[in-house]
Amino acid sequence: MGIDPGSIVTGYGVVEARGARLHHIASAAIRIPRTGTSARLGLIYEKISDAIRQNQPDAIAVEKVFMARNARSALILGQARGAALVACGQVDSHVHEYSALEIKKAVVGRGRADKFQVQHMIRVLLGLREALQADAADALACAICHINHARSRARYESAAGVLP
Amino acid sequence: MGIDPGSIVTGYGVVEARGARLHHIASAAIRIPRTGTSARLGLIYEKISDAIRQNQPDAIAVEKVFMARNARSALILGQARGAALVACGQVDSHVHEYSALEIKKAVVGRGRADKFQVQHMIRVLLGLREALQADAADALACAICHINHARSRARYESAAGVLP
Repeated sequence: MGIDPGSIVTGYGVVEARGARLHHIASAAIRIPRTGTSARLGLIYEKISDAIRQNQPDAIAVEKVFMARNARSALILGQARGAALVACGQVDSHVHEYSALEIKKAVVGRGRADKFQVQHMIRVLLGLREALQADAADALACAICHINHARSRARYESAAGVLP
Repeated sequence: MGIDPGSIVTGYGVVEARGARLHHIASAAIRIPRTGTSARLGLIYEKISDAIRQNQPDAIAVEKVFMARNARSALILGQARGAALVACGQVDSHVHEYSALEIKKAVVGRGRADKFQVQHMIRVLLGLREALQADAADALACAICHINHARSRARYESAAGVLP
């Protein structure tokens, strides 16, 4: 499960890997109404908790944040991330963090891809016909990135296991 | 109840107003061990949830954050605030926000007081003999600020009620 936390829209996406194939299980963009801060964060927490309960992911991945436009927007983004990460902590699933570069590389093959290329490749990789909301697409990209990394690790470990 | 969320230390303090007098009910500084982000935020959420459950505050107040040193520290502070505010949202208590200026004015009588003056005045106002940890003191200051504001509002409303 990938999560793209935001104070206006929070996206999540669930991808299952069966052998070499990736399957789209669920994805959504949660629009956060402009009420009080505490109520908005409560909604992020609730909706992400619900999605985790419904989908029982093996792992959760979020995008690492390096920069925000300014301290004010970083604080607001941080609050949204805090609410989402608290929901993740309710399950016994470690939260993996990947940089935007790693996520783009995993999905498009290079780090400099724009968001339309990312959205297009996710639809191709998951065999989706319909358009994807941007934050749901980012969350799915995050999930796919984690699957790739987990596979590489597994391959490396099994290769290391046959060493003398 | 006042809360001073932070990623390294989160403080909280509970103050009860009986008539004109203020009473210290509880206060603590929660030290957050340097584990993973999700686990740290989970701890803030849990400890604040426990404190709310134990103390059943009528209202909760936090300090408004205007500025942080930089975007990175704002994000980290935002995450801690997000975890604490989600805990507050679990109870049906509106979260009030006050600026550092309003809090200092409420406790020391002027906005330019330093933190030692704030700590000293809180000990005087609450009749505490022992030293106060800085984040617990800030949380208590926040609670006292809310009590003062709530009293002013109540006085204003009762005065407005007798107008012709």
